Amino acid sequence: MSNKPTLDLVKLGGEMYEFCRDLFPIFRSLTGDGVRQTLLAIKKHVPELQIVEVPSGTKCFDWTVPDEWVIRGDAWVEDPEGVRIIDIRDSNLHVVVYSQPVDEILELDQLQEHLHSIKEQPTAIPYVTSYYAKTWGFCLTHTARERLRPGRYRVRIDSELKPGSLTYGELRLRGSTEEEVLLSTYVCHPSMANNELSGPAVTTWLAKQLSSDINRRLSYRIIFIPETIGAIAYISAHLEDMQRKVIAGYVVTCVGDNNTFSYLSSRKERTIADRAATHVLKHLHPNFISYSYLDRGSDERQYCSPGVDLPVASVMRSKYGTYPEYHTSLDDLDYISSDGLAGAFDVLSRCLQILEANLTYRACNPCEPQLGKHDMYAPISTKKRSPATRTILNLLAYCDGNMDLLDIAEKINVPAWELAEYAQQLVTKKLIAPID
Amino acid sequence: MSNKPTLDLVKLGGEMYEFCRDLFPIFRSLTGDGVRQTLLAIKKHVPELQIVEVPSGTKCFDWTVPDEWVIRGDAWVEDPEGVRIIDIRDSNLHVVVYSQPVDEILELDQLQEHLHSIKEQPTAIPYVTSYYAKTWGFCLTHTARERLRPGRYRVRIDSELKPGSLTYGELRLRGSTEEEVLLSTYVCHPSMANNELSGPAVTTWLAKQLSSDINRRLSYRIIFIPETIGAIAYISAHLEDMQRKVIAGYVVTCVGDNNTFSYLSSRKERTIADRAATHVLKHLHPNFISYSYLDRGSDERQYCSPGVDLPVASVMRSKYGTYPEYHTSLDDLDYISSDGLAGAFDVLSRCLQILEANLTYRACNPCEPQLGKHDMYAPISTKKRSPATRTILNLLAYCDGNMDLLDIAEKINVPAWELAEYAQQLVTKKLIAPID
Amino acid sequence: MSNKPTLDLVKLGGEMYEFCRDLFPIFRSLTGDGVRQTLLAIKKHVPELQIVEVPSGTKCFDWTVPDEWVIRGDAWVEDPEGVRIIDIRDSNLHVVVYSQPVDEILELDQLQEHLHSIKEQPTAIPYVTSYYAKTWGFCLTHTARERLRPGRYRVRIDSELKPGSLTYGELRLRGSTEEEVLLSTYVCHPSMANNELSGPAVTTWLAKQLSSDINRRLSYRIIFIPETIGAIAYISAHLEDMQRKVIAGYVVTCVGDNNTFSYLSSRKERTIADRAATHVLKHLHPNFISYSYLDRGSDERQYCSPGVDLPVASVMRSKYGTYPEYHTSLDDLDYISSDGLAGAFDVLSRCLQILEANLTYRACNPCEPQLGKHDMYAPISTKKRSPATRTILNLLAYCDGNMDLLDIAEKINVPAWELAEYAQQLVTKKLIAPID
Repeated sequence: MSNKPTLDLVKLGGEMYEFCRDLFPIFRSLTGDGVRQTLLAIKKHVPELQIVEVPSGTKCFDWTVPDEWVIRGDAWVEDPEGVRIIDIRDSNLHVVVYSQPVDEILELDQLQEHLHSIKEQPTAIPYVTSYYAKTWGFCLTHTARERLRPGRYRVRIDSELKPGSLTYGELRLRGSTEEEVLLSTYVCHPSMANNELSGPAVTTWLAKQLSSDINRRLSYRIIFIPETIGAIAYISAHLEDMQRKVIAGYVVTCVGDNNTFSYLSSRKERTIADRAATHVLKHLHPNFISYSYLDRGSDERQYCSPGVDLPVASVMRSKYGTYPEYHTSLDDLDYISSDGLAGAFDVLSRCLQILEANLTYRACNPCEPQLGKHDMYAPISTKKRSPATRTILNLLAYCDGNMDLLDIAEKINVPAWELAEYAQQLVTKKLIAPID
Repeated sequence: MSNKPTLDLVKLGGEMYEFCRDLFPIFRSLTGDGVRQTLLAIKKHVPELQIVEVPSGTKCFDWTVPDEWVIRGDAWVEDPEGVRIIDIRDSNLHVVVYSQPVDEILELDQLQEHLHSIKEQPTAIPYVTSYYAKTWGFCLTHTARERLRPGRYRVRIDSELKPGSLTYGELRLRGSTEEEVLLSTYVCHPSMANNELSGPAVTTWLAKQLSSDINRRLSYRIIFIPETIGAIAYISAHLEDMQRKVIAGYVVTCVGDNNTFSYLSSRKERTIADRAATHVLKHLHPNFISYSYLDRGSDERQYCSPGVDLPVASVMRSKYGTYPEYHTSLDDLDYISSDGLAGAFDVLSRCLQILEANLTYRACNPCEPQLGKHDMYAPISTKKRSPATRTILNLLAYCDGNMDLLDIAEKINVPAWELAEYAQQLVTKKLIAPID
Repeated sequence: MSNKPTLDLVKLGGEMYEFCRDLFPIFRSLTGDGVRQTLLAIKKHVPELQIVEVPSGTKCFDWTVPDEWVIRGDAWVEDPEGVRIIDIRDSNLHVVVYSQPVDEILELDQLQEHLHSIKEQPTAIPYVTSYYAKTWGFCLTHTARERLRPGRYRVRIDSELKPGSLTYGELRLRGSTEEEVLLSTYVCHPSMANNELSGPAVTTWLAKQLSSDINRRLSYRIIFIPETIGAIAYISAHLEDMQRKVIAGYVVTCVGDNNTFSYLSSRKERTIADRAATHVLKHLHPNFISYSYLDRGSDERQYCSPGVDLPVASVMRSKYGTYPEYHTSLDDLDYISSDGLAGAFDVLSRCLQILEANLTYRACNPCEPQLGKHDMYAPISTKKRSPATRTILNLLAYCDGNMDLLDIAEKINVPAWELAEYAQQLVTKKLIAPID
């Protein structure tokens, strides 16, 4: 636990970026082989990952696991001259996700009803889904759409929606206590970088780091799921267990670009997950943007929902919905960077470090101890006192059995990871002891 | 419960103004026939009104109901030439209320000790009372007073103070629960408009609306009383019953002019009465003036007093004591308006609407429901979500069995009357249910 | 209890200044005869003072009472020409406190390692101690130090460190309740005025005033101790008794100069000690400086420490460590003044007055009383109400059995010492009564 990152963040950023690059072309959706390939790639890094299949039709609270959607082959549009002007082979964002099969010839104005583009971002292919309404459609740049001329177009989507399963990955790491930290990230978007692959990348590298730490105090539940229905399916199968164990959690998403950090509050707002996140950001990236739970948009919607009530927040870089590249083909490998990924890894890693260290201590004796006797004090008293002595005395002053380490760190305005080291020294010298 | 007023506020404002005009000439005081005539006029609109007489001499905590004061006939001053220069027939503010009988001839300097005028408002006749000190006096404009010349003046007040009773009106409306809202307004000032008749007018029209609403959940206790001693007499007779039932209340006074709204806090400051009032004002009249309980001056002084401890606030337009016309003949029918009355009716009506709707809900299932299935969601997901969907999801997110509807409305910054409609939809679809 | 000081503050300031002047030359240290002489001087003013000796070697939590340090005779430096250039007889700050005996001849560069001066304050002799590290040294002005020329210097300190005792003074004054106020000041620094003698002076005069007040409700524990080890020794002998009785306390230090007042929070921050201090300062010296507990530096470090947990704050003028003269020979009798001492006495005296008066009252009747009947109200009601009536009504409005007098004083923004007089009147008239 030191102020300096213990891992080579530059090297690690490069590894995470490479992981994103490798997984970028996979055609992920809510269900299907894209998710499975992605989970197998993660499992190469954390072999303990369990891959779980939830059958279509499984009831999950108000929801039902949908059928599996498969693009068996073609998904394209031919213009009146027979030229394929839109083809899923060029970008897997071209097809509206969960499109029904179609093989028709249409007039342009009929086709237009099935096309999606963004006038304000003429070079972006938008990302559009229709999980629960039965339709089909294509996405394209607005520039390409404007070039379409009247005539008869052939459209073909060779898709199928059939009973199958929803797939997710789960990694459970046992610490010395049953108390658990939840990390949740999603694996259900096609080729997008910040709002998809950055999450699994950083989460995978956090999982690698955690699984190699044999001294971990807390247990970890790390899940890679399709957004929304995946989280709901997971919660519906593990609700009681999660409510009993999870003391803090983070949804890991949009952690790949190199812009200002963002924090999104949990519903309950001042949980230990929130406090650790804002503490780290305040010390490392003080200009971070703070979002209310009203700005939520990922799986904290489920984890924090009434009846689930878990203390789950989110630390991001550019938050979903706030950057123009979001949910378009412009959220690509150029939008993220190894530095961006490494910075987010560092922040989340320190949050976990704080959760590990966040005990409540009580001073062993009334009054201040004689620090000199314990080799913790400058022997000759002049006007000034060293910052370290000041920090130790402040830490001691608040070890009252009520404030936890993070409370004290906030109170005395010292990074909790530094304070954790002093606390360890004071425990060793039997000047403070953890309670409970 | 809709954002648009369900009644024609213009028509209703006109009716209330007419009511004020009709009752303006009546010579009201703490006790006596002026109060009785006023209550009978109110009873024409709400026939269920009970008129109650409390005998003089009745003990009410530290107080005693005073004798009844009657102006039997004359109340005037004649100048040395025998001209009646002050006469109650011209304005019932001319005589100091509760003046003892007098019939004397005095020198001007002796007379001056019994005259009241306001130098800074030379055209205003001030309103002066002397309920508990035995004296007599006349009020006049400062302009008229300056015209008085030395000489012998005859003064005559044919009044009597004799055992009788204090009169008040009470309307009790039973809802489906015993929980009660208190509306209290006073009927004890002579010809003044904002600081007298506006209160009974708006309260009467609220009572009419409430008594015609057969679906009301809450019960209502609506009282028309002389200020201070009337409230004390009422409380002393109903204390335990009120403490058991009243969940919120408003003193209705100074609700007739067309100036900025005012809110006066209850003593306990954040009661449901306060929260509803500030919520409505924040949304409808965001530049309203917020007064502390230290600025109180009407019957909240009694309702909120230690030992009574009711959650009673006040919503006003120009607060008593803050406008120059207050407690003078300038607070007349020109100072108020039908628009002013209608605006105040609207605000108080919405406060009651919120109190009616203010249940605490719990979501029926963990996790978000599948809104599409319930016809509450746009089926194709693009970048944006409709405001209605956002509001419904936010409402659901906070239906945790702890926050009441008004808490949630404040949290998500949506008018509670709009939220109440969504809540009703969600109840119908069995997605949330009220607790208790 | 009146707004005007009941004592002649000017006279009293003069007496306290004289006391400081008399005690200035005494060579105080942690232990020894300097402390004893100081305590005997205090005992002349408060004969009930008990002088207590704690033997060297006594264990006090993590600490041990040190041996007693005695300067038996010489403490000087002679230059190569045999001229005594530093001599304790000129200033008792010249010798590092707790210096070990030495009698050597040294080269200048060896001597320099044992010299202390302040480059930025060339005319100040610094105050340096070495209670727990075995060494010796001399302090001198930087100007003098710069004049030293190479050569052989003779240094001699005829000191001895031997078993003896630590001495403190304790005054216990019993009131009608066992609830106690702690006043603690220190008597362990040599010739310094603000950061030493001002504390014992003001505390002694507070003790004189308190011991002459036969109506005191609270008990008082007033201690004159060596800083840190003295407080720790005292607490270790009285911990349980103090925890049972002490409801508020102040460390009295740095109360002699005439600059802006300072307030240092207790650890728990909003104790009655803190509330009384900030209330008095807000009303009398609204531009006072508010320090956090993180800025602490005197015996509140012990009183507020975890395991002791007493509600002890500090009211100062120029706080230790914040003025350049601090811990140097410039903190002398010119730095303090009789006005400065008197002002601090006044503030602390009012704090105690508030603690005495700080009861929780309940109104005897529901509703407002009829003030006129009790001779507390102007009988003729016009537009205005007198400030006294307003204050009485506000006091009554908050006598709810929950808010104490100080809460109410803060709420209605009236000095608590004024409010205490009104409360007394209302008790006499049986309109309010203290609870418990």
